[in-house]
Amino acid sequence: METLTATETQPMTNSVQFVCATARQQLKQLRSPIIVGVAGDSGSGKTTYSNGIRRLLGSDLVSTLCTDGYHKEDREQRQISGRLPLDPAANHLDRLAEHLKALKQGKAVPIPVYNHGSGKFEQPENFVPTPIVVVEGLHTLYPELIPYLDFSLYVDPDHPVKWQWKWERDLKRRGHKAEQLEQEMLQREAAFKRWIDFQKIDANVVIKIFHSQLQCLAPHQFTGILPNPCYKVELILQPAPVPLPTLPLPFDLAAMLAVDQPPFMLAAVPYRYWGRSAIAIHLDGVLSQKTIAGLEDYIVNYTGIPTDEAIPEEQYELTSATRFAQLLITWRFLEQINYLLQKNR
Amino acid sequence: METLTATETQPMTNSVQFVCATARQQLKQLRSPIIVGVAGDSGSGKTTYSNGIRRLLGSDLVSTLCTDGYHKEDREQRQISGRLPLDPAANHLDRLAEHLKALKQGKAVPIPVYNHGSGKFEQPENFVPTPIVVVEGLHTLYPELIPYLDFSLYVDPDHPVKWQWKWERDLKRRGHKAEQLEQEMLQREAAFKRWIDFQKIDANVVIKIFHSQLQCLAPHQFTGILPNPCYKVELILQPAPVPLPTLPLPFDLAAMLAVDQPPFMLAAVPYRYWGRSAIAIHLDGVLSQKTIAGLEDYIVNYTGIPTDEAIPEEQYELTSATRFAQLLITWRFLEQINYLLQKNR
Repeated sequence: METLTATETQPMTNSVQFVCATARQQLKQLRSPIIVGVAGDSGSGKTTYSNGIRRLLGSDLVSTLCTDGYHKEDREQRQISGRLPLDPAANHLDRLAEHLKALKQGKAVPIPVYNHGSGKFEQPENFVPTPIVVVEGLHTLYPELIPYLDFSLYVDPDHPVKWQWKWERDLKRRGHKAEQLEQEMLQREAAFKRWIDFQKIDANVVIKIFHSQLQCLAPHQFTGILPNPCYKVELILQPAPVPLPTLPLPFDLAAMLAVDQPPFMLAAVPYRYWGRSAIAIHLDGVLSQKTIAGLEDYIVNYTGIPTDEAIPEEQYELTSATRFAQLLITWRFLEQINYLLQKNR
Repeated sequence: METLTATETQPMTNSVQFVCATARQQLKQLRSPIIVGVAGDSGSGKTTYSNGIRRLLGSDLVSTLCTDGYHKEDREQRQISGRLPLDPAANHLDRLAEHLKALKQGKAVPIPVYNHGSGKFEQPENFVPTPIVVVEGLHTLYPELIPYLDFSLYVDPDHPVKWQWKWERDLKRRGHKAEQLEQEMLQREAAFKRWIDFQKIDANVVIKIFHSQLQCLAPHQFTGILPNPCYKVELILQPAPVPLPTLPLPFDLAAMLAVDQPPFMLAAVPYRYWGRSAIAIHLDGVLSQKTIAGLEDYIVNYTGIPTDEAIPEEQYELTSATRFAQLLITWRFLEQINYLLQKNR
């Protein structure tokens, strides 16, 4: 990880806490942006889970770079060569590394653009770094890119969830044909396991997504009312180098004791994950709007986001396990930023 | 359920809430005690789970009646007859029903006493009812006793948990011999299923107890630090006739995000339980002392228990799932009392 430098040294206390009003101020004054890598298969929900960071820190601070433009071949060329974009050798990862290096120095870079609708490359776009740059793609946590990352997410939907998403997305929105798509999806399985899956080892946060498993907690007939779809999210968190002290969740048990309330599950379990310590946070079902909003307000106050940067309404349509996961990811990111700022002041 | 009458009609608002300072006052002025039935196999933990009610409402308000004295035969007689006390016909349930009826009228009764150490009956004790009487025994939720009950618990440890407890208790504390005990425990299995188990159908709260299942939530090597023993408790709650509005749980997520914190799980799932609506509350592992104490303080303030009636220290040695279960059971009981007082004023 590269060092961070702030253009102005802020007067800070010895406390590990942000001074609330200055978290955003400090970020704005960074000379070298903070780079967040988000890896995972295509159609795995990378954008959904990095959205909490965008939303809670404000779009003026956060921009997103999609690495699909670094594929070497467009759709037509791939149909001839038979190579998959999952293969790192089918991507200009060297160029991506150069670009990340330039971004880290605060420079703008011309990023290549791939159009998923047409299956063709378009004109490069001039990408001017904001204080936080979210880099999303298939190979973002590859060893040659890791040195430029300050924080990393790996999004890991369970197999049936991923297939359902990919099927719906590519058929409906990207105009693939059903037979061709199924053939391609089958081909990709081994390639995914070989070239993508291992990246989770180094991620600060792994986000596993399952279909809701709450029915397993009802020994007889489950009668819970769940949104459709409803997901279980399991966050595998690397412990923060310096944890922030408190994150209150305003939880009302009375809502748990009524049959007409939606079901939920919350658990925290420490374990060893591929040779290192981790905490698994399990989230399933629906927490009350009040509880989620209370948690979000706490984080928003913590970052010092101006109240006029309203949180978009559409975000509230997410099932609460997804929203809750976004909030915890953002919190873990704030812990990382805080640590980096402290280390480098 | 018999009607409740208060000796003085208290001025009450239309709100469903207790007026905090008067909950205990109202109970003290009852002419007819509130009777709580607690059923379950011997050695199933009946006392542990009714202890929350005793502890949080105060020992001046709550007394306990153990129904083991209503067995027809002592240990020596049973060894000759081969009858098990699990058989309702081997118990004076008619006499117990008479006694409950008298207690409901506020009268003292001479309750028979069985000594588990000697295996013999002792002199009856004069039992003077307090405002709340907890009746614990094998058959407490039998149809002939149900009419005298205002609230009911059924304690239902999972098979391996029950065997372990019974084995430890009867061998160590009651002086049974190992071979004889195992023989007796095997004999009891079918009798338990036939005569005891079905009582759970009508209980306001069924308390299922398992060995901790948190290890199942760690896909790789579990590293959580758990007390030994550690239980998972599943409460199956009948919805309250009139729910009390709020029961805040002061929950700190920061404690979830550190690897050195003990693991826990909390879930709420509505389902159908033997033909009726129920909510299953799953509790496993350890919640922070601060969270549990905060919940307990809220309930204590709610009942209006005087602060000089200190909560015994030894209760804090319970694993937090058990303590949390005690608190939720007590809360559900307060909902029931509140409903009964409102209905009969």
